[in-house]
Amino acid sequence: MAAQDPRVQAEVLKQFTTAIFVKAGLSPEWAETQADMLVWSNLRGVDSHGVLRIPAYVGWIDKGLMKTKANLRVEKETPGVLIVDADFAPGPVAGVLATQRVIEKARKIGIGWAVIRNAMHLGAIGYYVEMIAKQGMAGLCVTCNPPNMAPAGAKAPGLHNSPLAIGVPGNHHRPVILDMATSVAAGGKVSLAVDKGVPIPLGWALDKQGNPTTDPKQGTILMPFGGYKGSGMAMLFECLTGLFVGNPLLLPVFQGKPGATEHRQNSLVAAVDIATFTDLAQYKRNVDETVAGIKALPKAEGASEVFVPGEPEDRVREERAKDGIPLPVGTVQNMRTVAQRFSVPLPAGL
Amino acid sequence: MAAQDPRVQAEVLKQFTTAIFVKAGLSPEWAETQADMLVWSNLRGVDSHGVLRIPAYVGWIDKGLMKTKANLRVEKETPGVLIVDADFAPGPVAGVLATQRVIEKARKIGIGWAVIRNAMHLGAIGYYVEMIAKQGMAGLCVTCNPPNMAPAGAKAPGLHNSPLAIGVPGNHHRPVILDMATSVAAGGKVSLAVDKGVPIPLGWALDKQGNPTTDPKQGTILMPFGGYKGSGMAMLFECLTGLFVGNPLLLPVFQGKPGATEHRQNSLVAAVDIATFTDLAQYKRNVDETVAGIKALPKAEGASEVFVPGEPEDRVREERAKDGIPLPVGTVQNMRTVAQRFSVPLPAGL
Repeated sequence: MAAQDPRVQAEVLKQFTTAIFVKAGLSPEWAETQADMLVWSNLRGVDSHGVLRIPAYVGWIDKGLMKTKANLRVEKETPGVLIVDADFAPGPVAGVLATQRVIEKARKIGIGWAVIRNAMHLGAIGYYVEMIAKQGMAGLCVTCNPPNMAPAGAKAPGLHNSPLAIGVPGNHHRPVILDMATSVAAGGKVSLAVDKGVPIPLGWALDKQGNPTTDPKQGTILMPFGGYKGSGMAMLFECLTGLFVGNPLLLPVFQGKPGATEHRQNSLVAAVDIATFTDLAQYKRNVDETVAGIKALPKAEGASEVFVPGEPEDRVREERAKDGIPLPVGTVQNMRTVAQRFSVPLPAGL
Repeated sequence: MAAQDPRVQAEVLKQFTTAIFVKAGLSPEWAETQADMLVWSNLRGVDSHGVLRIPAYVGWIDKGLMKTKANLRVEKETPGVLIVDADFAPGPVAGVLATQRVIEKARKIGIGWAVIRNAMHLGAIGYYVEMIAKQGMAGLCVTCNPPNMAPAGAKAPGLHNSPLAIGVPGNHHRPVILDMATSVAAGGKVSLAVDKGVPIPLGWALDKQGNPTTDPKQGTILMPFGGYKGSGMAMLFECLTGLFVGNPLLLPVFQGKPGATEHRQNSLVAAVDIATFTDLAQYKRNVDETVAGIKALPKAEGASEVFVPGEPEDRVREERAKDGIPLPVGTVQNMRTVAQRFSVPLPAGL
């Protein structure tokens, strides 16, 4: 973003986004859930998962890939686990349903574990573990797509750079939220380098022929972080999601099935209730003090500060909640196009 | 190991190790469980977690740190979760108890989730997830110790390089087992460099003053893999283990409490039953085919083969199960010392 980028208050941006998705065919409830996730990402500075996605999502609706009237349902259930069949519903609608259900289960027996089949993009999965952490629980989320990353030792895509999110509640401290891709750099960072016209570091991505590249336009195959470690995590995440609901996302690509690379996600959402195990108030104080202890350590050469997971994003959120969300020119242009199409007024100032 | 290292069959090594721990005060059952874990590690080539640990464990018993008559018990339980208080029992005894219990729970409601407080060294945690995978379930294990790793941005220890293990069953393929530390290199690799008198790569470890070093003798502070990612995982793992059972392992070190750096572990073991979600036979075939698809990808420059998690270790296991476990001279010398002390005959050939 640039210093002169116009800013819009989060609530205004959310109302605009909701209105767009209602016009695109979602129910007001689903549209609001979808909008809340996008604006949550912008608030935390994760703009790659924010409102810049609106045109892509609307495009999915146009093509029938995202179903506005999806038959979203709980398919199987025990006191501890469930399967959510999303039927290509907007990701956040499926994600929030699964999150609510695992919280209910965890409240009763200490744990809830859900696997979601065939949702569209869940977005920044820190969203779901934050919901869980706010209920006094530890949250866990993993999501998998068709492949975009080379396994360690390979030079062709065979894994998705599936993210992992873990969140726990603090006392005075906001929930501590880890939300990380299993690639060296998230895909959004490569796109950003394209937009900025700058090279990417060697080791981030391979070109279509599988050669290392510093050209972000050529770098279409991501590389796993930590070599076999990130690679192994991504592979096991597929085994914990798609294979658990009979809906593999890697195999159809290996088998060359038509449509195998089309976007869709299988995900895992789990909640573990802290009060079932120990004193919740003490737990939260321990999180605060662990954060404080880590932050008080002597800084490494060149480090301005020791950050705990989610802390940089929390700082952006504080600032943007007050001053509004800055929107770069490209994003505004895309919003204008979609606003005109659906006759929804752009937020004032854009 | 060297080509001329003597080899001992796994079963013989296990009998020897069991006999030592019985003489050291463990019950025959506990001694056998402890021995089985150590020899399992040697079989898979993870010698850093094998019988070379015998003298250290016996030393813990001598000092009363590992309790031979620990009051190991299930402290709390719901249909989905439990706490195991290990009371400083040998790690594998606590780990196996927790593993058996989470398997039973998962058989009934699809999931079991255990947190273990104050066990001694669980060893290579792939052991527990393999046990779970053999029951047709996905296994998850995490374990945390007092700090030995610098958080990203810091130059002093504030986290443990807590490992993560995930395992799932294959059909013809052995269970796929990911077992990885959250440091760039496991502590055992630094020790190995000391033994071999070779330098370590920059980025593996810091010296006591927090400076990067290539001298393995000086490199006492490990560094997280993937920077803030490995660091974040390790921090959240403490939140999922020690804080869940009111037994933090990082905080007491920050607070300078006496004994805070003494070895002990809090761990998490979980099992998720595949048949509760989907067809188990199909799941296992999908794992086999996913493995095959990944292995068939074009190889990266310089890679001899695309490996899936646990595959290199499985190859060593096949070879060692047949030809015996090679024991380096230092390990044999340590075994001889402890054998003499307890009047247990060394395996033939040593």
